[in-house]
Amino acid sequence: MTHVSIIGKGNMGQAISAVATQGGNTVELFDTTDKDRPVTGELVVLAVPYPALSQVLAERGDQLAGKVVVDITNPLNFETFDSLVVPADGSAAAELAEKLPEAKVVKAFNTTFAATVATGQAGEVPTTVLIAGDDVEAKELLAGVVSQGGLRAVDAGSLKRARELEAVGFLQLTLAAGEKIAWTGGFGLSETPAA
Amino acid sequence: MTHVSIIGKGNMGQAISAVATQGGNTVELFDTTDKDRPVTGELVVLAVPYPALSQVLAERGDQLAGKVVVDITNPLNFETFDSLVVPADGSAAAELAEKLPEAKVVKAFNTTFAATVATGQAGEVPTTVLIAGDDVEAKELLAGVVSQGGLRAVDAGSLKRARELEAVGFLQLTLAAGEKIAWTGGFGLSETPAA
Repeated sequence: MTHVSIIGKGNMGQAISAVATQGGNTVELFDTTDKDRPVTGELVVLAVPYPALSQVLAERGDQLAGKVVVDITNPLNFETFDSLVVPADGSAAAELAEKLPEAKVVKAFNTTFAATVATGQAGEVPTTVLIAGDDVEAKELLAGVVSQGGLRAVDAGSLKRARELEAVGFLQLTLAAGEKIAWTGGFGLSETPAA
Repeated sequence: MTHVSIIGKGNMGQAISAVATQGGNTVELFDTTDKDRPVTGELVVLAVPYPALSQVLAERGDQLAGKVVVDITNPLNFETFDSLVVPADGSAAAELAEKLPEAKVVKAFNTTFAATVATGQAGEVPTTVLIAGDDVEAKELLAGVVSQGGLRAVDAGSLKRARELEAVGFLQLTLAAGEKIAWTGGFGLSETPAA
């Protein structure tokens, strides 16, 4: 059993909370008014939009040392929908890891729309959560929570691959905003091996 | 009916040739020994690996003026499988467009493994060809060939989105090489609207 802290009560925070709970884990949910209540989970999901990360770090950075910290953000320029706001050779996850040197940062859930996390289906295929990170045990902890909750988890490699995951998330958001795909679908990974 | 020239007789060239033929289009296939035979198609697919593009341009660059040129490459560093060999803020397609200012360059088929082009299925879902480019008519010409041949075609936006398509292709190749997904599957796009 994993004790999971989720910061953010939006669609993604709620959907990830349901997945974790369904797998028999304990969950504590936070929003921005809870800043005086410290996180106690070993796994902390930052279920906030990219622009809100800096505030979370300012309020809770010290509490995150030693923990597995999950970055789910897509750092889009939401005015233009035509670029990311992080350096082309970097990622939001890499920025976060640099600011939290004592945490184990993993990238996940940025390529899965909230509806697909909630239902377990990305259109016709089961929802797959792609996980990138440099700490194998951290990835395994998250993958356990994901698969116990009924979703597929796939190890996407080192934290360097967060750059590609953020490109996938970016492309998927532009396709949905342009009505090329549904918000209940998106990129599904077919034929993954059994977990 | 579209007259299609395909340079490259590998798995991708053959699979794309079969799609085009199935849709009732005419196809001429070339390999590297055919350099003295000019391309005559209005749609030219460069079905060669990224390192071979420069040779194709040297031999046929002049023949490509005015044509729709399809770049299917994934410019990976195949020694490390850990990075692309194009600039982080660019793409192979952008490089190609710069070298072929009189052609209409589109990016496509780099996110579909050859087996999924050949069978029309990416695992459990129909194969989707993502197409990026700046010329709307060029994209529509290719989309017609793709959909007449039984695959789904989705407009992924401007040629700038080739960067994200190449990130998807890169990630997909690393997942398959790492046996996380099958070469008959990969990223499928669920719930695309009817063509």
